[in-house]
Formats: sequence, structure tokens, C-alpha cells
Amino acid sequence: MGKVTTGSTTMSLDGYIAGPGESGFDLLFQWYGNGDVELPSASPDVPAFRISAASAELVGPEWENTGSLVVGRYLYDMTKAWGGRHPMDVTTVVLTHQRPDDRPADDENFVFVTEGIEAAVAKAKEIAGEKDVVVNGGQMARQCLEAGLLDEVGIELVPVVLGGGKTLFGELATAPAELEGPVVVVEGTGVTHLRYRVKKV
Amino acid sequence: MGKVTTGSTTMSLDGYIAGPGESGFDLLFQWYGNGDVELPSASPDVPAFRISAASAELVGPEWENTGSLVVGRYLYDMTKAWGGRHPMDVTTVVLTHQRPDDRPADDENFVFVTEGIEAAVAKAKEIAGEKDVVVNGGQMARQCLEAGLLDEVGIELVPVVLGGGKTLFGELATAPAELEGPVVVVEGTGVTHLRYRVKKV
Repeated sequence: MGKVTTGSTTMSLDGYIAGPGESGFDLLFQWYGNGDVELPSASPDVPAFRISAASAELVGPEWENTGSLVVGRYLYDMTKAWGGRHPMDVTTVVLTHQRPDDRPADDENFVFVTEGIEAAVAKAKEIAGEKDVVVNGGQMARQCLEAGLLDEVGIELVPVVLGGGKTLFGELATAPAELEGPVVVVEGTGVTHLRYRVKKV
Repeated sequence: MGKVTTGSTTMSLDGYIAGPGESGFDLLFQWYGNGDVELPSASPDVPAFRISAASAELVGPEWENTGSLVVGRYLYDMTKAWGGRHPMDVTTVVLTHQRPDDRPADDENFVFVTEGIEAAVAKAKEIAGEKDVVVNGGQMARQCLEAGLLDEVGIELVPVVLGGGKTLFGELATAPAELEGPVVVVEGTGVTHLRYRVKKV
């Protein structure tokens, strides 16, 4: 049984996973392009990543061990469904109020869940099998943490100050919450990889 | 000539230096009491700190090399002037609109500056001499970064999610801003010490 983790959520030094008005992604995601090790992308819209060797040693195996993703409808729409498949090459569970009309029912790339975060994570676990479920940062991560569904938090801290935007967990209803760790600290190029465990109450 | 730094600003995993309604300090500052190495406090209201050996190896010399502090009037009032002297045992420059009535003019513990952040930092540098000036996080750090007065940012990242509150730099007018580093990464007990350099334009 794999774990449920936020995986690799890139965050600014002042705590934002997106800048004001969905800005700042060029700065946040610089570390995805500043190295020599290629991380392939399964999305036709997203080119392969080129990360530092130190980053690849951590993130590569994490990607390998990811069995499914959970994202919100907002991200699905904003990325235009990543052109058809998520870069990480796994089935993506989309939590939504209404499934989109333009997707085939037997789509292997996306599964739509309308019954809430617990159902979305349950579906993602079913798909992932022995592998991990990665939950996207922001609202999905917040709902998972509130519902006690999250095992690990992964943060890629980058030396950028955005001054506003979306925070890692938004307004967490169960705050304050204490985590354990970091259980992993890896310094890449222009990024500090941190992994924390969620305390089980 | 010393540097101007935010020194040792404790921040939650979601980017807050204070929780909603000035809450969360017990959780943020746990690392100040979870170790075996004593860091003395010059404040009659603040007991000595007991931090881990790893933290002390970094923070001890940093405190030794601090020549003065810059804080805002808000913190000065909230802490009731730390009972008369700041824990770090240095003269504290307080940026304020009006100097308080209850302080002697020849006070060695506090100096009040009303002419803005540049004047406050200039005064603090004069006091610090060859040592460093530490600028308190939040509004003071924001104003320093905006005015190009800051050389280094020091963050003590703790595994706590606060869900809201005051962010490291508030709404930075000059955002986005890129820093260099971390130039230092030290793992203490329940805290990750990170030091970044501000890029000089």
C-alpha cells in the first residue's frame, strides 16, 4: 500500500504555490529546467524537464513510484488537461462538480469524481495499487489534510519572494497542524527539497 | 562593515511568521526550548533559550555577531519592550511615528527613529559598527527589501501549518524578487535553518 503525498509542490520562500493572478510560475519552476538530467514528460504540451543530478536522485524515484494523481477541476481546466495526459504519465483523478462533456467515458488519462475528496482519494488509491497517490497542492491538499487522508507533505522551496498568491494549504480548517520532520532534506540547484510526515492522531 | 539581515525569522511551513490573531507562537518557537544548549536572554521577561546543539552552532555565533536590531513599534508595544531590554542583549532601534513618553532620552536599550526605514537602518548600522544589523521579519523586513537595504534573509522553517496570519514579507511592492541560495542549510531539532543572499541589482 502506497502513501498519499503532496509529492513535489514548489513553494516560494514566502509560502506561495502561485503568485498573484496565477503569476510567478516561470520563477517557481526554474528548477525544472536548470539541470542536466532529463525527466521525460508524457504531456504533448509540456516539454521534458531538465533537473540537477541531486534533484533527480530524489524526484526521479518518487515519480517512478507514483501510481495516480488527484487534482482539482481548476487545474485541469487551467492546463487544458495538459494536452491530454499529465506529464507524470499516470491516470489523473479530477475532483469536479460535473464531468466535462468532451472526454470519452473509458478515458485512461483522466477519471472524474464528483462525490468529494474521500471518494477521489479512494479512487486514486485503487488506481495506484501498491504505488503512491500524489495530491496536488492548494485546495486538494488542504481538503486531504483536513480529512486525515494525507501521509506526507513534499515541498520544493525556491529562493523567490512572490508577495502574494495561493498558499500551500489555503485556509486550513484544522490549523494549527504539526508535522514531523523534515525526514528528507536535499539541496538541488535553486531548490531545497523537503519531505515531512503528517502526524496521525 | 557588517551585513543587514532578517537574522533568525521563524516561519511556518505555509509561510507565516505569526498565526491568525497573533496566535501560534507556542508552536513556531518550540525549537527555542527543545534542546540542551543554553542561549542566555537579556530580557527580564523572556527566559533563557535551550536549543539543540546543531541550532546553537549556527545561531550562537550569529547572535554574538549581532550589533543592533531594527523592529517596528507594533512589536515593541506587543512585547512591552521585552521588559526593558531585548533578549539578544543589544540596542534595539524602533521605527515609530512618535517616540513613547515613558523612556529616558539617554536609554541604551532602545533608540526611536521617526524618519523612516532608511534612517532606522542607518542608525542601527552606526550602533552595530563592524557587527551585523538584524531586521525583524514582517513589515520591517518588507520595507528593507523594497528599499534595497537587505543583504541576507534568514529563515527558521518549522513543521507547523498555521493556515493564515502574517507572512514573511507581507505584500512586497517589489515582488517578485529572486534571492540566492540557500547559502546555509542546517537541520536542528524541529527546525530547518536556511540563509539566503539578496541579489544586488
